[in-house]
Amino acid sequence: MQYPSRLLEKAVQEFAKLPGIGRKSALRLVLHLLRRDSDDVVQFAEALLKMKQEVKFCKVCHNISDEEVCPICSDTRRDASVVCVVENIQDVMAIENTQQFHGLYHVLGGIISPMDGLKPSDLEIDSLVERVAEGGIREVILALSPTMEGDTTNFYIFRKLAPYEVELSVIARGISVGGELEYTDEVTLGRSILNRTPFEGK
Amino acid sequence: MQYPSRLLEKAVQEFAKLPGIGRKSALRLVLHLLRRDSDDVVQFAEALLKMKQEVKFCKVCHNISDEEVCPICSDTRRDASVVCVVENIQDVMAIENTQQFHGLYHVLGGIISPMDGLKPSDLEIDSLVERVAEGGIREVILALSPTMEGDTTNFYIFRKLAPYEVELSVIARGISVGGELEYTDEVTLGRSILNRTPFEGK
Repeated sequence: MQYPSRLLEKAVQEFAKLPGIGRKSALRLVLHLLRRDSDDVVQFAEALLKMKQEVKFCKVCHNISDEEVCPICSDTRRDASVVCVVENIQDVMAIENTQQFHGLYHVLGGIISPMDGLKPSDLEIDSLVERVAEGGIREVILALSPTMEGDTTNFYIFRKLAPYEVELSVIARGISVGGELEYTDEVTLGRSILNRTPFEGK
Repeated sequence: MQYPSRLLEKAVQEFAKLPGIGRKSALRLVLHLLRRDSDDVVQFAEALLKMKQEVKFCKVCHNISDEEVCPICSDTRRDASVVCVVENIQDVMAIENTQQFHGLYHVLGGIISPMDGLKPSDLEIDSLVERVAEGGIREVILALSPTMEGDTTNFYIFRKLAPYEVELSVIARGISVGGELEYTDEVTLGRSILNRTPFEGK
């Protein structure tokens, strides 16, 4: 495609580097910004730069944070004896949105995946072991994706934490609430029968 | 949704202002930028700022340009006696990509649309009339969208150009090349029969 302006072309190229944004979408976004007020574009660019320059990672749980220690880790009302291990920041946000968990997190920054070249040493696993070794943690909940990579990572963490006196649990796998039994895959359905829980009649 | 960082939240909000990008996509894009090198993010932000600050609109055809006059208008090999009227910059790029047009353009910056509050005075129609009044233009091709708004704009331009000796044409409307007759809408199919062209047997 031929662009009437090299400045425009450069901006489109930059947008098209983002995941899921092709050339056409990039052009649409850039032309949209071109129509907006200059102040808006400055604000957009500055928000990105400021975030990139100033955002920190919590030194306890490795979640994103504006401070050295994130608001979740520094919240004294939360139960610091329970730590939920997740793959990334989005997972923390997803679990926080459920409002069902009141402990702390540990963000691995990925899961073990030889395909993507992610080794245990690339992840925040050693720092998890250190947190547990320091004491004060009663339970570690593994909340990774129910995939082969997730299972591998779970098992790796299980072995690493074996020397310590800490309870290890995995989030429940079963049929989705509101899902149709008929359309649930066999493995999930099979597991949900094996891992059935007592009916509480509430 | 609760964000662990206000800097992150601000960046997500800015991305989510772009058309077709919701909160979830915005978060994904921002987290992607967070993982990229700082230099990449600076380059991205600077490309946008530079484009917004320095890009010009061609004073002849109102297409986007790095110079006072765009590369198309200043190309002496093109036929300056034929002017193709289009709605926006994307349309110029689309027609340029066909490599079938060798005249100049005139970018209206929209079409007459009372629904969107776009009046003729908001568009580059007066400047089109001026171009024609100056002389040297033999034919004006109307290449607007085949919609009610496009037709309204075509008719408005037709009346404005009536006092001048200039040929006015509209790009052909008919069935798409490679399209299935069966799935062509009635209006288009009907028009394509009325506006049939001699079979050239080539």
